[in-house]
Amino acid sequence: MQSVTPLLFLGKSGEVVYFNNPMWPGEAHSIKVEKILYKEKSEYQEVLVFESLTYGKVLVLDGIVQLTEKDECAYQEMIAHLPLCSIPSPKTVLVVGGGDGGVLREISRHSSVEHIDICEIDKMVIDVSKKFFPDLAVGFEDPRVHLHVGDAIEFLRCAPEGKYDAVIVDSSDPVGPAQELVEKPFFETIAKALRPGGVLCNMAESMWLHTHLIQDMISICRETFKGSVRYAWASVPTYPSGVIGFLLCSTEGPHVDFVNPINPIEKLEGADKHRRKLRFYNSEMHSAAFALPAFLKREVSLLRDYSH
Amino acid sequence: MQSVTPLLFLGKSGEVVYFNNPMWPGEAHSIKVEKILYKEKSEYQEVLVFESLTYGKVLVLDGIVQLTEKDECAYQEMIAHLPLCSIPSPKTVLVVGGGDGGVLREISRHSSVEHIDICEIDKMVIDVSKKFFPDLAVGFEDPRVHLHVGDAIEFLRCAPEGKYDAVIVDSSDPVGPAQELVEKPFFETIAKALRPGGVLCNMAESMWLHTHLIQDMISICRETFKGSVRYAWASVPTYPSGVIGFLLCSTEGPHVDFVNPINPIEKLEGADKHRRKLRFYNSEMHSAAFALPAFLKREVSLLRDYSH
Repeated sequence: MQSVTPLLFLGKSGEVVYFNNPMWPGEAHSIKVEKILYKEKSEYQEVLVFESLTYGKVLVLDGIVQLTEKDECAYQEMIAHLPLCSIPSPKTVLVVGGGDGGVLREISRHSSVEHIDICEIDKMVIDVSKKFFPDLAVGFEDPRVHLHVGDAIEFLRCAPEGKYDAVIVDSSDPVGPAQELVEKPFFETIAKALRPGGVLCNMAESMWLHTHLIQDMISICRETFKGSVRYAWASVPTYPSGVIGFLLCSTEGPHVDFVNPINPIEKLEGADKHRRKLRFYNSEMHSAAFALPAFLKREVSLLRDYSH
Repeated sequence: MQSVTPLLFLGKSGEVVYFNNPMWPGEAHSIKVEKILYKEKSEYQEVLVFESLTYGKVLVLDGIVQLTEKDECAYQEMIAHLPLCSIPSPKTVLVVGGGDGGVLREISRHSSVEHIDICEIDKMVIDVSKKFFPDLAVGFEDPRVHLHVGDAIEFLRCAPEGKYDAVIVDSSDPVGPAQELVEKPFFETIAKALRPGGVLCNMAESMWLHTHLIQDMISICRETFKGSVRYAWASVPTYPSGVIGFLLCSTEGPHVDFVNPINPIEKLEGADKHRRKLRFYNSEMHSAAFALPAFLKREVSLLRDYSH
């Protein structure tokens, strides 16, 4: 595929950073840099942090914006609460990726949760988040959190069967270190690690740009998960095309109605207590996230029979 | 406000066009140009059409993307059907702006409609659309359409009181020729031109970027329209921050429940007949569009008492 601008053009402070990628050819999003705060190569990827003019601090991995302080709320809150509000009293949760800590911060709102495993491959991401993104890294301070630095596929292989009520896959795009995370064996190990009626929430690309990838993921998940498989999406301005999708799957067992949360956030005592208020998620946004445009239902044939 | 890159940087074919604007400082969206098809200054604005690599043909006015062939469906379908599906049997409709014809194309799906006025100030936009965007300009071919080239405020002043069931304001951003279209006198003339229980749908900026402007518009509309005032939004990748908002207002009279369409598109006989299929809008997307993020309800105090 053709590259419009360099994958990452890094000028001096005050210049503009361009984000362009083979995953979204023909377009780029630029965010004005006020100051570069960090730039190192880890064992796995290039890690960059900068202060922007209007989006707060920005975390970039291999030239792709992972989060900005302005809009991280949309992604972190949706990827955590879409699954956790869909099941009664989640107790044991696994996060794959999510080294910035934002998803942990959101899981922490659920007082029913007793144990949170997180498996992040790149320690530098965790360290950088603790240094530059304290509002996200605060998630690591919860005593229920158990950090495992390493490969998620290995970790899942060793996990006891049926251990988790929910697995949340907060990975980067399926290029580079996250490539294996859209393949069937990965989903199979997740399904095994979930209890009957347990749920997976997996980052699932843009409905405007990646319909083929979405079709493939849904197809694999329909084969692998014998409960429900649903697609949802949210608005995140700094992600390509301004949206990000989520694939929600449940294993065979008690039926999970993803669209109508059984465990609504408003009823969770103390979900906001001692914590910053929810910025994006609420029960209406939860249900609304499952409404899909006509073109998506048509192009992704596996979505056609959605009764919602 | 600070400018990151030139408002419009137009290179030779094959280069990238950067869109940056005082309305969204500190960021820019770039779309790769395959070929420049048209570039002229009209009496009101600079009109540019180019063929892009991945978004089809693109219409740009004064350096701001108005539409691309890839995602115009989201905007045109939502701005037309949100109001028209909220009232029973709309008969008389006014479009302010909308010179590309896309909104007319969508209104045409409603067989109850007998008369459509459109008031567009810039004839060049209409001519350019007829030449380069036949899938949008097709809207002008409907015999129910009556075109008025001129100032919408003048047109509305002369319109008979209570003439319209619905008014759709498809204007550009409130800089340049569209500035007056967010001010109180404009909304007052619209309210007068609407029948009791008639509806307005007005383009209403980005919830991520323009909360103050949204607050102001809602405030004016609450004073002016004595029925319902609601805010909705849709995903449009090529608009700043990837979303666009709509303000829906009804005049005193029969109650309008904007969230639950009384005139659902699925029940309109022939809404798709002889026409391209709906690409974005459906009744689920209609209702979902009114779900608002927590931050928006908090920042726009006038949205706090939404019961939905």
